[in-house]
Amino acid sequence: MTLQTKVVPSLREAILRAGLRDGMTLSFHHHLRDGDNVLNTVLAECSLMGLKDLTVNASAIMGCHRPLLDFIEDGTVTGIECNFMHANVGRSISRGLLKREVIFRSHGGRPAAMERGESPVHAAFIAASAADAAGNCNGKEGIAAFGSIGYAMPDAEHADYVIVLTDHLVEYPLMDASITEDRVDAVVVVDSIGDPKRIMSGTTRVTRDPIGLLIAEQTARAVQASGLLRDGFSFQTGAGGTSLAVASYLGGIMRERGITGRFASGGITGLLVDLMKEGLFETLLDVQCFDREAVESIRENARHGEISASRYASPTARTAVVDHLDVVILGATEIDTDFNVNVHTDSNGVIMGGSGGHSDTAAGAKLSVIVAPLVRARLPLIVDRVGTISTPGEDIDLLVTQYGIACNPKQAELSEKLRYAGLPVFSIHDLKARAESITGRPARIESSGRTVARVISREGDLLDEIRTVMG
Amino acid sequence: MTLQTKVVPSLREAILRAGLRDGMTLSFHHHLRDGDNVLNTVLAECSLMGLKDLTVNASAIMGCHRPLLDFIEDGTVTGIECNFMHANVGRSISRGLLKREVIFRSHGGRPAAMERGESPVHAAFIAASAADAAGNCNGKEGIAAFGSIGYAMPDAEHADYVIVLTDHLVEYPLMDASITEDRVDAVVVVDSIGDPKRIMSGTTRVTRDPIGLLIAEQTARAVQASGLLRDGFSFQTGAGGTSLAVASYLGGIMRERGITGRFASGGITGLLVDLMKEGLFETLLDVQCFDREAVESIRENARHGEISASRYASPTARTAVVDHLDVVILGATEIDTDFNVNVHTDSNGVIMGGSGGHSDTAAGAKLSVIVAPLVRARLPLIVDRVGTISTPGEDIDLLVTQYGIACNPKQAELSEKLRYAGLPVFSIHDLKARAESITGRPARIESSGRTVARVISREGDLLDEIRTVMG
Repeated sequence: MTLQTKVVPSLREAILRAGLRDGMTLSFHHHLRDGDNVLNTVLAECSLMGLKDLTVNASAIMGCHRPLLDFIEDGTVTGIECNFMHANVGRSISRGLLKREVIFRSHGGRPAAMERGESPVHAAFIAASAADAAGNCNGKEGIAAFGSIGYAMPDAEHADYVIVLTDHLVEYPLMDASITEDRVDAVVVVDSIGDPKRIMSGTTRVTRDPIGLLIAEQTARAVQASGLLRDGFSFQTGAGGTSLAVASYLGGIMRERGITGRFASGGITGLLVDLMKEGLFETLLDVQCFDREAVESIRENARHGEISASRYASPTARTAVVDHLDVVILGATEIDTDFNVNVHTDSNGVIMGGSGGHSDTAAGAKLSVIVAPLVRARLPLIVDRVGTISTPGEDIDLLVTQYGIACNPKQAELSEKLRYAGLPVFSIHDLKARAESITGRPARIESSGRTVARVISREGDLLDEIRTVMG
Repeated sequence: MTLQTKVVPSLREAILRAGLRDGMTLSFHHHLRDGDNVLNTVLAECSLMGLKDLTVNASAIMGCHRPLLDFIEDGTVTGIECNFMHANVGRSISRGLLKREVIFRSHGGRPAAMERGESPVHAAFIAASAADAAGNCNGKEGIAAFGSIGYAMPDAEHADYVIVLTDHLVEYPLMDASITEDRVDAVVVVDSIGDPKRIMSGTTRVTRDPIGLLIAEQTARAVQASGLLRDGFSFQTGAGGTSLAVASYLGGIMRERGITGRFASGGITGLLVDLMKEGLFETLLDVQCFDREAVESIRENARHGEISASRYASPTARTAVVDHLDVVILGATEIDTDFNVNVHTDSNGVIMGGSGGHSDTAAGAKLSVIVAPLVRARLPLIVDRVGTISTPGEDIDLLVTQYGIACNPKQAELSEKLRYAGLPVFSIHDLKARAESITGRPARIESSGRTVARVISREGDLLDEIRTVMG
C-alpha cells in the first residue's frame, strides 16, 4: 500500500474533501485567543465557496472573530454554539442578528454534548502550531506555539472529518503529539495560524487595584479559614488580575506555613508556573495556556501536563479534574440573593461572555468562591435575580467583596469557620443593601424580545434563555 | 460535590460494580507477557462468583494463561477472541475444548472491531504498573513496569466499564498518564500485577545460529537492493533472533553509508533502542516493550514514543503507523506458492500463534519480507496451500531463506533489482522443490473436523477457518 499524504494543496480542497454542504456544522477551538487566524479564514473560504446555513461550534468566540458578523449577514453562518462569546459579536447577537438561537455550553458540557451525540460536528478545524504530514500535531512547538490544545481534543475524537491547519510542518512522526494521525483526515499548511503576539492577551498580571487586592487578601484568608488549605491542596483560578492576586496571597500563606499543594488546574499562567517551580504546587493540569511562561513550561516540564477538555471538565467523563478540586476562584458580572451567577450578559442584558469552565469548576470544587467588587460602574453586583443564570447558586459557596463576605446559607459550618477566623461575614441581603446604599436601586431592564440564546447546563438541560435587547 | 474515590476494596467488588453477568465479554491486554497475573486472577474470581458463559477478549493469550483451560472446563469461559494464542491453550482449543469458535483478529483489527461495534466489551481489565486513585495510569513506572500500554488503550476507550488493576498506587494526579481518569470506572490495588522477571521473556537477542545469520544477512542485502534503505527509512521487525539479526545487519549498512532512518515501530527491543541512541533511527513508535532496555527508554527518552493499538495498526484509523512503513520483517510457520503466510497453526494444524501485527504491517509496509529457514524439524517451509491463511499472499513481497530468495511475481521490478545486486533469486516453486529434495514431500494432514476458530481479516472479513485436530 502506498500512503497518500494528507497534506492538501489548499483550504478549499480540504473543505471539498470534507464534503461540507449547506447546513453542516464546523468546529473550532480558541487556544490562539485574540490572535486566531483560523476561524475567520475558514469562514471566508466557505463564504467564497457559496456554502450557506453553516453552524459554527467554537469553544469560544473571541474579540478577533468579529468578521463572523459578515458571514452571518451573507448567510454563510446561521447557527452558533460556543462556551463564551466576546461582546464584539455578542452585541449583534443580542440585537437579533442571528435567526437561530445561539447555544451556550460550558467547557465540560461541550465535549459531553458531542459524546452524547447531541452536538454532531461534520468538520473540525484544528489550529496546530506544529504538525506532520499525517496529522500528528500539538500546540507546543512552532512560531505560533500556544501550549495545551485540550479544547480541540474532543473535536478530533468526534468530528466526521478532521482538518489540521498548521504553519509549521515537521517531518513524520511528530513526537509528543497531542492529537494523533488516527484521528486526522487532512492537513493544510497556511502562512500563519495566528499572531503569536496577540495569542497571549494582556491581563495575566496580579492586579494593582487596591480594591482587587483587598478582595484577594480576604479570599485567601477565607480559603485558609475553610480548612482546605493543607498539604495536598488543589486549586483553580482564572487569569484576571484579582484571581491572580488570590493565587499570589495563597502562595504566600503556603510558603509561610510550609504547605505543598498537589495541583493547580484549568487555564495556566506564569504565576502558577512560578508557584510550581517554587515547589508550592507539585503539578499543573493544563487545558489552556494563558501566557508565554505557561507555553514554555508545558513544553519543558514533565510536571506540567496537558489535559483534554473531557478530562478537564466533562460530566460524561468517569471523573474529571474539576471533580478533584478543593477550591476554585471565579468571577461574576452579577450574582443574586440565591447565589446564581451571571457571566453571560452585562447589566443591560447584552451578551459579553459565557461560562467557559465557570459552571464546571463550581460544580466540581469543594469550595467555589466568587470574587468581585460590590459596585462596578455605579451598578451593584448583587441583584434580586440575575439577568442570565450561568452557574446555579447551589454550586456557589462564597462571595467575597471589598465590603465583606457572604456565605451560601447551605454552608452554615463554613460560615462559622469564617466568623471564628474574624472575617467579616454578612448575609448576601445585607451586602446587597450595602451596595444599594451606594448606588441606589437601579431600574431593572426587563428584556421581553424573542430568545436569541439558550444557556445549556453541563448536564445538557436548559438553564436559562437570553432575549433580544434593543440598543 | 464530594468525589468518590474509585479505589474499590476488592476485585470482586469491582466485578460487581461493573455489573458483569453471564454471557458478557471481558477484555485484557498482554503487555505483561508471560509474567501476567491479571487474566488468571480475574477469571478465578469470576469462577468463584459463579459467572458463566463469559467471553475473554485478550490482545494475546500467553503461555502463562494455561489456567484459562480450567475456566473453560468449569463453564466460566465459553468464548475467546484474541490476536495470538500460545500452544499451551491452543492445543486444547484445537482438540475442540471450546464449543464456540475462537475469533482471531490482528493487533489493528481488534481495535477496529471495537470501533465498528462488532466487538462490544462489557468490562476491560487493565493491568497498570502505576495508577492513581482516579484511574490515571501507565505501564512505565512501578515495580512491574512494562513500558507501552498501547494495546489496552482501545479497551479503555470502548469498554462499558473500565477497571484498572495496579500494584503501585500513586498520589493523584499521575503525570504522563497513558490512560486517563475520564475513561476509568474503578481501581483495584493488588499485590502484584505480574512477575517482572517473566514479563520480558527470553528471545530478544540476535541469533547465533549460522542459518539465521545467513538469512538475516541476505535480508539486509535485499532491503538495500530494494532502494528503500535511504535517509528517512522506516522499519519494523519482531523480537525473534533472526529478525533482530536483520536489524543488526541493517544498522551496520546504515552506519557504513551514513544513512539515518526516521523511525522503527511496533514491539521495541533494546537493540532498536541502541540504534536510536546511536542516531541510526531518529525515533521509536512503541506499542509494546519487549525488554527492560525498551521499558527504560520509553520512560526516559522523548524520541521513544508510546502509541495506541489504533494508531499503530487499525484500518479504521485515518492513517496508522503501519501505513508509513518502508520495510517490515516477519516470520512464518508456513508459506505457500501464492505467498500466503501461516502463523496460526503448526504443520499438524494445531493452534500455536496468531497474527499479532503480522497482517497489519504486511498490508501497510512498502516491502514485506518473510524470513524463515527453508526446512524446520524436517518439514519444508513452503507448501502448496498453507494450513491457515494468516496474512494474504498479496501483502507479502519477499521470502528470504538460507537457500535463496523468492519474490512475489507481482513485484517484477523488485526481482530485477535483487538479481542486479547479485542476490540468489528463485521462483518460490524452485525453492519449494529444493526443500522437498531435502525433506521429501510430506503427507498433507487434512483436517476435516468442525471449525474451532475463525481468522478475521483486519477489515473484518473471514480470512480462514481452523478445524479440530485429533491428537
